[in-house]
Amino acid sequence: MLSLALRTSRTALNAYRSRGIHAPASLNAVTETDLAHFASILAPSSVISSLAPVNSPTDELDPFNQDWMGRFKGNANTVLKPKTVQEVSQIVKWCNERRIGIVPQGGNTGLVGGSVPIGNELVLSLANMNKVRSFDPVAGILVADAGCILQALTDYVAPLDHVMPLDLGAKGSCQIGGNVATNAGGLRLLRYGSLHGSVLGLEVVLPDGTILDQLTTLRKDNTGYDLKQLFIGAEGTLGIITAVSILTPPAPQATSNVILALPHFDNVLPLFQTVKRDLSEILSAFEFLDRTAYDLAVKHGQGKALDESEVEGAQCFVLVETSGGRREHDEEKLNDLLEKLLEADEPLINTGVVSQNPSQFESIWGLREGVTEAISKEGKAYKYDISVPVATFKDCVDATRDHLESKGLMRPDAVKYVVGYGHCGDGNLHLNVCAAAYTQEIADALEPFIYELVQKHRGSVSAEHGIGAMKTHALHYSKDAVSIGLMKQIKGIFDPNGIMNPGKVLE
Amino acid sequence: MLSLALRTSRTALNAYRSRGIHAPASLNAVTETDLAHFASILAPSSVISSLAPVNSPTDELDPFNQDWMGRFKGNANTVLKPKTVQEVSQIVKWCNERRIGIVPQGGNTGLVGGSVPIGNELVLSLANMNKVRSFDPVAGILVADAGCILQALTDYVAPLDHVMPLDLGAKGSCQIGGNVATNAGGLRLLRYGSLHGSVLGLEVVLPDGTILDQLTTLRKDNTGYDLKQLFIGAEGTLGIITAVSILTPPAPQATSNVILALPHFDNVLPLFQTVKRDLSEILSAFEFLDRTAYDLAVKHGQGKALDESEVEGAQCFVLVETSGGRREHDEEKLNDLLEKLLEADEPLINTGVVSQNPSQFESIWGLREGVTEAISKEGKAYKYDISVPVATFKDCVDATRDHLESKGLMRPDAVKYVVGYGHCGDGNLHLNVCAAAYTQEIADALEPFIYELVQKHRGSVSAEHGIGAMKTHALHYSKDAVSIGLMKQIKGIFDPNGIMNPGKVLE
Ligand SMILES: Cc1cc2nc3c(=O)[nH]c(=O)nc-3n(C[C@H](O)[C@H](O)[C@H](O)COP(=O)(O)OP(=O)(O)OC[C@H]3O[C@@H](n4cnc5c(N)ncnc54)[C@H](O)[C@@H]3O)c2cc1C
Ligand SMILES: Cc1cc2nc3c(=O)[nH]c(=O)nc-3n(C[C@H](O)[C@H](O)[C@H](O)COP(=O)(O)OP(=O)(O)OC[C@H]3O[C@@H](n4cnc5c(N)ncnc54)[C@H](O)[C@@H]3O)c2cc1C
Repeated sequence: MLSLALRTSRTALNAYRSRGIHAPASLNAVTETDLAHFASILAPSSVISSLAPVNSPTDELDPFNQDWMGRFKGNANTVLKPKTVQEVSQIVKWCNERRIGIVPQGGNTGLVGGSVPIGNELVLSLANMNKVRSFDPVAGILVADAGCILQALTDYVAPLDHVMPLDLGAKGSCQIGGNVATNAGGLRLLRYGSLHGSVLGLEVVLPDGTILDQLTTLRKDNTGYDLKQLFIGAEGTLGIITAVSILTPPAPQATSNVILALPHFDNVLPLFQTVKRDLSEILSAFEFLDRTAYDLAVKHGQGKALDESEVEGAQCFVLVETSGGRREHDEEKLNDLLEKLLEADEPLINTGVVSQNPSQFESIWGLREGVTEAISKEGKAYKYDISVPVATFKDCVDATRDHLESKGLMRPDAVKYVVGYGHCGDGNLHLNVCAAAYTQEIADALEPFIYELVQKHRGSVSAEHGIGAMKTHALHYSKDAVSIGLMKQIKGIFDPNGIMNPGKVLE
Repeated sequence: MLSLALRTSRTALNAYRSRGIHAPASLNAVTETDLAHFASILAPSSVISSLAPVNSPTDELDPFNQDWMGRFKGNANTVLKPKTVQEVSQIVKWCNERRIGIVPQGGNTGLVGGSVPIGNELVLSLANMNKVRSFDPVAGILVADAGCILQALTDYVAPLDHVMPLDLGAKGSCQIGGNVATNAGGLRLLRYGSLHGSVLGLEVVLPDGTILDQLTTLRKDNTGYDLKQLFIGAEGTLGIITAVSILTPPAPQATSNVILALPHFDNVLPLFQTVKRDLSEILSAFEFLDRTAYDLAVKHGQGKALDESEVEGAQCFVLVETSGGRREHDEEKLNDLLEKLLEADEPLINTGVVSQNPSQFESIWGLREGVTEAISKEGKAYKYDISVPVATFKDCVDATRDHLESKGLMRPDAVKYVVGYGHCGDGNLHLNVCAAAYTQEIADALEPFIYELVQKHRGSVSAEHGIGAMKTHALHYSKDAVSIGLMKQIKGIFDPNGIMNPGKVLE
């Protein structure tokens, strides 16, 4: 599902420049002198640079300068890939003294332009720090280098009967350090909670090169302020995470899922309540697709589950996943639930299909996970990853569509679809506006309109993707001046010279 | 179980004084002028003061000056019990300008002397802020004033099919604000994780009186640094929590438990692994008692479950609790597990008893929960609440006993028992040294011995109770100089005048 195609959007790049985001003038570019120093502490294979004497070709630097969406492009002349925390520390210490900006980079799958330079900062890639340090199979505690790829860790703990507490579409490329730095949510949050709960310890290189060792494997440790929490979701602006200690839950023995068609959106909330009560601890996902999202997924062959005649008139769809310790128990619970739903006097659902085997399981998930791809096949997507009360999901989508309509923009050569889907169980709506092309007119119609809508509902302008370079101007819609002021003071403590991921998160 | 008997220990109070803990000279006592100001903004019932014109009798102030253990005694002349966040803000603003120290106080059940003044600071009690602000029965999100008592909130959400994500012995008195301020762990941590994961938002009055509104009800919100995390476990040194937004899980429909007798301590880890795998998502507690703890509990009539002949030779005991969505499923899993354990070729357990009804359920828990009381009936307890690897639980207890033995202190008129029990599932050992009386000789033999032992195992000198006034000198055994330095800088940002709970957490 993860494609690394770099679709550069000129409009987006322009919008980005026009907001005047650029590396602070107080920071310096990497020079040949710096490079000579780096070469003295790192293996040759750890250094990519267009500077002499290394003279790497540009296309070796490109993948580190361009973000996953192709919307943001940096201008780093040097990428370093240290292999140990000591090497990271030495690099950072040097950069701090020389006032060189640093962008910590994981798998570069971030969706807000946080992982590439805004100017000519140095890119410090964690890709070469990719060893598991330890795994305690009894407590389920994994300690791994920050550069370990999420999929690799998933594969590592699976035969030891554990799962990673997070899962996301980018798992084949994203790194655990990047996940922690972005406080990634993903598909298992409903079940296993956020990384603020499951990350037990971190090793971090602070912006002056000091190694902060909080790499504990303790589940409980109430000794002073919990500093590691600050790095979770700081998007590399407070330091470089070099290792992560994380709690992995026991692997479920069985998983199942069902797709449900609902006649009205209003039924989503009562349905969620019933499902939560009846499935209780085995409920692991409750995902939402509006009619448009479902139709687009089906149109583009992303999974197939329901009969066309049966879903006539359905206003939206819900995917429920269970995972638990014993297949027959879980199936019994799920079947009982479905029976109850279908036989109710005023049923909340039109119909529902339970997966009977792994391939059906995949094809039901395909409907939900395929929405992104389906939309990208239809046109250019303006993506908003917001948190709002579940009850307002439909209102938010409708209000956006109405607003575009009132601007005369709902037409085949402008906006084709306004789509809503997402992690309903977490109040996280992916509001996507699918257009024929990226244009300034559409961009202006959408912002600040959507951010103001989110603010009205006391929501979050970024549920899981973060702020990066893309949303610094929108932070104030979700955080007040007091909070932003405190954030800036905290940034000042850790990074007084502002070298760490400049221009990201805070303006 | 919660007794408010105030057992003052002179030795402990002396030890406390001899460490030179006192309110900084830069802080002022509350004067009649201040009192007049407070009286102008608060209802008369919100003010207790020995100063004129209020002239409250001392015994009205005593309960606020003395901690639960009777080890710490403050000297506040004034206690304020504001009713709104605005009142709190006005009080704090005044105190900040006048440099008056403030101790935020919840239920005053804290076990490290954090909730009472070390000198003549003002006590700000949250007791009058005790309303539920909202509850969303679909998402399970509760927003409550900080002064709500944990038991009251448990009772509030129960008929709405939810449970609080934490439970502890002090629940009849402790407040949700105090729980968050201490990052309380308790009996449900294994199942529902830590407050860093389940607290969604906070309203906090900062030390300059500013109201920080992060009282969101969003499960996901990646917009900048997660500031609220800093207040979780800060023990009132960074600000006053006035409201909490917290995720409550759906109530389990059935709970059960079993007590298991183990021939050797070495079996605990393999047993934990088997139990985790087989009970998976319904496992809700895995508690450990060593032989001494068990025998003391039985001796003092704290629950009864196992036949004497059957537990002969058992070295330790484990209590397993399940809670899940369907009784027959859960019982089946538990019975299958027991059968497997008993019929194994080399069984990990000698015997086990499953509760058959609510009263047996209580009596099995009684064995575990009654240890504290049993110990207090035997003598004076030196209590260490530490996190160490589970594999070293027995070593830690044995090493402490051996050490006391080598000092000639293991005798009926000095140390009677060294006892280990605790939340095995969380790596949290309660190491209790039960003595005939508190003496300096024993205290000196125990510290820094135990802290060094913890440090050797990279453990935590305070798993859940915090640092308070009692352990500021021991913080460095679990946190290095870099971490402590950063904590002090953070304290400096929030509370430059050092008025908020002075002398606590950081020296
Ligand atoms: C197909 C697809 C699906 C996705 N699905 C989800 C989803 O469901 N939920 C979700 O939350 N996100 C999702 N994302 C976004 C993204 O994958 C996550 O944010 C991921 O956690 C980023 O990890 P990364 O290693 O690629 O980090 P990068 O993209 O390299 O970096 C992201 C940010 O973290 C910083 N950073 C990276 N590594 C470190 C480090 N070691 N130390 C300090 N800072 C560091 C960077 O500077 C940057 O600011 C998805 C992305 C894609 C492409
Ligand atoms: C019988 C018994 C059993 C216990 N069991 C456990 C257990 O299993 N697990 C566990 O973790 N603890 C346990 N404790 C310790 C204690 O109950 C908890 O720490 C509890 O969370 C404290 O809550 P409280 O309201 O009584 O806070 P207090 O004792 O009043 O205060 C504790 C600390 O928090 C600060 N504080 C209180 N309220 C606020 C506020 N609104 N804003 C800012 N700061 C505030 C105080 O200044 C103080 O530093 C137990 C205590 C007893 C007496």
